[in-house]
Amino acid sequence: MFKKICIIGCGLIGSSLARAIKKYNLSQRTVSSNRSNILNRKVVRLKIVDDSSTDTQAMAKESDLIIIAAPLSSYENIIFKIKDSLKKGTILTDVGSVKEKAINLIEKKIPKNISWIPSHPIAGTEKSGPDFGFSELFKNRWCILTPSKKAKKKDIKKLKLFWKKIGSKVDIMDAKKHDYILTITSHVPHLIAYNIVNTSISIQDKKKSAIIKYSAGGLRDFTRIASSNPIMWRDIFIQNKKNTSTTIDKFIVNLKKLKKAIENEDGKKLEKIFTKTKKIRKDIIKAGQDISKPNFGR
Amino acid sequence: MFKKICIIGCGLIGSSLARAIKKYNLSQRTVSSNRSNILNRKVVRLKIVDDSSTDTQAMAKESDLIIIAAPLSSYENIIFKIKDSLKKGTILTDVGSVKEKAINLIEKKIPKNISWIPSHPIAGTEKSGPDFGFSELFKNRWCILTPSKKAKKKDIKKLKLFWKKIGSKVDIMDAKKHDYILTITSHVPHLIAYNIVNTSISIQDKKKSAIIKYSAGGLRDFTRIASSNPIMWRDIFIQNKKNTSTTIDKFIVNLKKLKKAIENEDGKKLEKIFTKTKKIRKDIIKAGQDISKPNFGR
Repeated sequence: MFKKICIIGCGLIGSSLARAIKKYNLSQRTVSSNRSNILNRKVVRLKIVDDSSTDTQAMAKESDLIIIAAPLSSYENIIFKIKDSLKKGTILTDVGSVKEKAINLIEKKIPKNISWIPSHPIAGTEKSGPDFGFSELFKNRWCILTPSKKAKKKDIKKLKLFWKKIGSKVDIMDAKKHDYILTITSHVPHLIAYNIVNTSISIQDKKKSAIIKYSAGGLRDFTRIASSNPIMWRDIFIQNKKNTSTTIDKFIVNLKKLKKAIENEDGKKLEKIFTKTKKIRKDIIKAGQDISKPNFGR
Repeated sequence: MFKKICIIGCGLIGSSLARAIKKYNLSQRTVSSNRSNILNRKVVRLKIVDDSSTDTQAMAKESDLIIIAAPLSSYENIIFKIKDSLKKGTILTDVGSVKEKAINLIEKKIPKNISWIPSHPIAGTEKSGPDFGFSELFKNRWCILTPSKKAKKKDIKKLKLFWKKIGSKVDIMDAKKHDYILTITSHVPHLIAYNIVNTSISIQDKKKSAIIKYSAGGLRDFTRIASSNPIMWRDIFIQNKKNTSTTIDKFIVNLKKLKKAIENEDGKKLEKIFTKTKKIRKDIIKAGQDISKPNFGR
């Protein structure tokens, strides 16, 4: 499908992509670029990629698909390094979780003949680094493309096919809409998880062992989400700060209403809200977006 | 181990207990009492119990172990029905998630010769009703006993053995401490999950299908928790309202700090918090309180 694919950043997502590319035979050659030489040696030794180096420009050269799989805050620097040596007609994509800022930033800086088509595979685990990547990570998961003005139609089609070949379902969406929806489905839920775990840490000092021991009551499931990559999430919240901020405000308003209902022992109101939230789960299961159930506590 | 066990309320927890009692052969006879006749017929037909009726007093009579597995708000009514026909030396327990209020309520109303030993098995799923119960629900899960003043030592020992025989690990704790710890490990995390799902519902009207479609980014895992039994959770929050209220306040203070850090693009602060929360997960895994990992999104 491609002659040379370059993955910039071979972490959990990048290394999973490299593994999937190999498995489904989508490129003659796959290389990566990482800032750490230890990592570059590792991904070659593990045969995840054919070559890897800190020299991003050299790795990106002659590639017909370049995938940025590094933190959002590194995009500017990456583009600065590669922009002058991109092959005409190269498809440039990324895997970042926020789109609007990145799309504008890169659109301005790359030559006209490059097809810049941001991707967001909605997949991941709480682990970081190439050791935890696996080729099936994208299977049955959604991948959202938010093509820039510099995206050729035939390239959008090709990139869509690429994601489909590694098992994803693909949607095309406007970057602004993407960021708004992901604020609700992903970014704020993660922030809330970080906050509940952080709050429990600040309370727990004297009761630390007890809180860990009985964490299966619900907290445990939040600690999983709250152990995702800190750098990645730092960048997501900052790049999507307006949406995040507005949604947090709404969240706090609703939480205060719940608190008041509890204090007033307003059982009817609580029951009504808890019944409503139960319904949305049914819709999610119906949409095939559920996974096998963990056994959690009360 | 027992001659007759009576389970009052054969829902998810009650029916799982009945199944476990049968499997591990812990009673000559197991009966239940439910308010609905459809349910009473069902649990007998499914051979979950030997007999079941709306007549709680008749079912409880002659039992040497009575387990209340009904919503916390029904305890007063249940005790009123059974208190005058309890067999001398009966062990009375429950499976409720809040202890202090219930322990005092029942302690006052039952005769001296009854061993009242509240239990809290920290186990459950998001499903409700006897169809979803299973005998292994309590396996490797903690069960906390908070014995009342009316608990005989030998009976505490016996009840502890009962929970161990169905696979649980047992701890004994003061009711006040139990309620405080569970606020952090279970009650507030559940309230937060209800609130994030409720907030997303209020936002989603125009984008409903998109939000469901991309819920794997994090929201989905909250909808699982937020689809637990509404009646059960209504009662938990109301009975534990002081602890819940105080913890919500702390949660909001911390969330506002996070929001401010995002608005100020204070990457260092965010990274520090997100790294700290990552650590507690390691402790949980070390404590053997983790389950197989779901594949979630970003």
